[in-house]
Amino acid sequence: MRQPPTASLAPTERTHVRRHRDRASYELEEIRAILDEGMICHVAVAIDGQPWMIPTAYGRRGDELLLHGAAGNHILKAACGGSPVSVTVTLLDGVVLARSTMHHSLNYRSVILFGQVSEITHREAKVEALGAIVEHLLPGRTAEARPPNDAELRATRVASMPIDEASAKIRTGPPVDDPHDAELPVWAGVLPLRLTAGPAIPDATATALPPSVSLRQPGRWASAD
Amino acid sequence: MRQPPTASLAPTERTHVRRHRDRASYELEEIRAILDEGMICHVAVAIDGQPWMIPTAYGRRGDELLLHGAAGNHILKAACGGSPVSVTVTLLDGVVLARSTMHHSLNYRSVILFGQVSEITHREAKVEALGAIVEHLLPGRTAEARPPNDAELRATRVASMPIDEASAKIRTGPPVDDPHDAELPVWAGVLPLRLTAGPAIPDATATALPPSVSLRQPGRWASAD
Repeated sequence: MRQPPTASLAPTERTHVRRHRDRASYELEEIRAILDEGMICHVAVAIDGQPWMIPTAYGRRGDELLLHGAAGNHILKAACGGSPVSVTVTLLDGVVLARSTMHHSLNYRSVILFGQVSEITHREAKVEALGAIVEHLLPGRTAEARPPNDAELRATRVASMPIDEASAKIRTGPPVDDPHDAELPVWAGVLPLRLTAGPAIPDATATALPPSVSLRQPGRWASAD
Repeated sequence: MRQPPTASLAPTERTHVRRHRDRASYELEEIRAILDEGMICHVAVAIDGQPWMIPTAYGRRGDELLLHGAAGNHILKAACGGSPVSVTVTLLDGVVLARSTMHHSLNYRSVILFGQVSEITHREAKVEALGAIVEHLLPGRTAEARPPNDAELRATRVASMPIDEASAKIRTGPPVDDPHDAELPVWAGVLPLRLTAGPAIPDATATALPPSVSLRQPGRWASAD
């Protein structure tokens, strides 16, 4: 597993954050933490000037983002054909209520990643990458479920994208009001939001709850109890 | 407020769902319900073959999606200059655990919207559209907070996009296993997920909790209590 040479990525023309620079981060540790907590990403490509976007599951393995889709999926096909790709992972942490309409905001952590993908075609590498995507959602799950067979692998396209041109953007904390609004009799503060898991719903013939389900990832999701 | 002529949108080349057609919907009622429950969208444009994407708040007013951003934001600027735009709203409802790795899935409701935006430049129309974006997140909030002033309006670009070329994609319910996997001794089922609100965190000098905060939108978020 190749490790990036430094703990911080160099901003590029594409990843350099121009507005709210105080919210920007190029630290790999922060970028990885956001990618690890997210469960879906949005993948975009441009085809003849038209932007196409798809929400999809993903995995992270070292400094690689792993994507998959149906073999015929035109977005992944274009990406594997060399089209520039943009991927975003966004975690919503709260609604920020300021004393003025315009200073309302959201607390969030997002990563934007630019680059190109490489298709993974070798059978074993494909199985490993698909396993990493399932493990990203449910650590331990690949040891529980039936592995992919040849027909399933043929029907699936798998791609790897280097995490080497990326930036994180993070807004956290209370509203920032204009000084002259401070005395307005308006409630201000934050309404925190988080993705929570409810009790697992077993299939009709399901067996006892396995580790991948009973394990609640702290920070990724919490029990709704 | 213009109302669409029919209750269902005609699929176009761009919105026609080709895979998992059983998950597709062109019903305006379903599309609107997903847009109304979402709190952020991802907006994409293509500039010289490069896809650009931004997560952002939005509003819905009838069959219009309302967007805003800093006046200098290059994505919204390109969109207002006529670039084709793609917008996605994705709600994550659960992780679907099948008996085989490849039939794992996510339960979700998403809308993909294609088209072009029109910039809103008239002062009153701008104030109204910005109000609709705040009301989308927090119904009743515009009656509580200070309205925008001229400097704030100048610094903000506002755009409207017709909701007339869109499709919804919805996956719900238990895993769908291959018949020959039914007997495998693997737990299968759904881990439900939802975005929940925690107790509001007041700013240092905040007054009593107003209706926009104490009101929990059923289906949009639930109290964490």
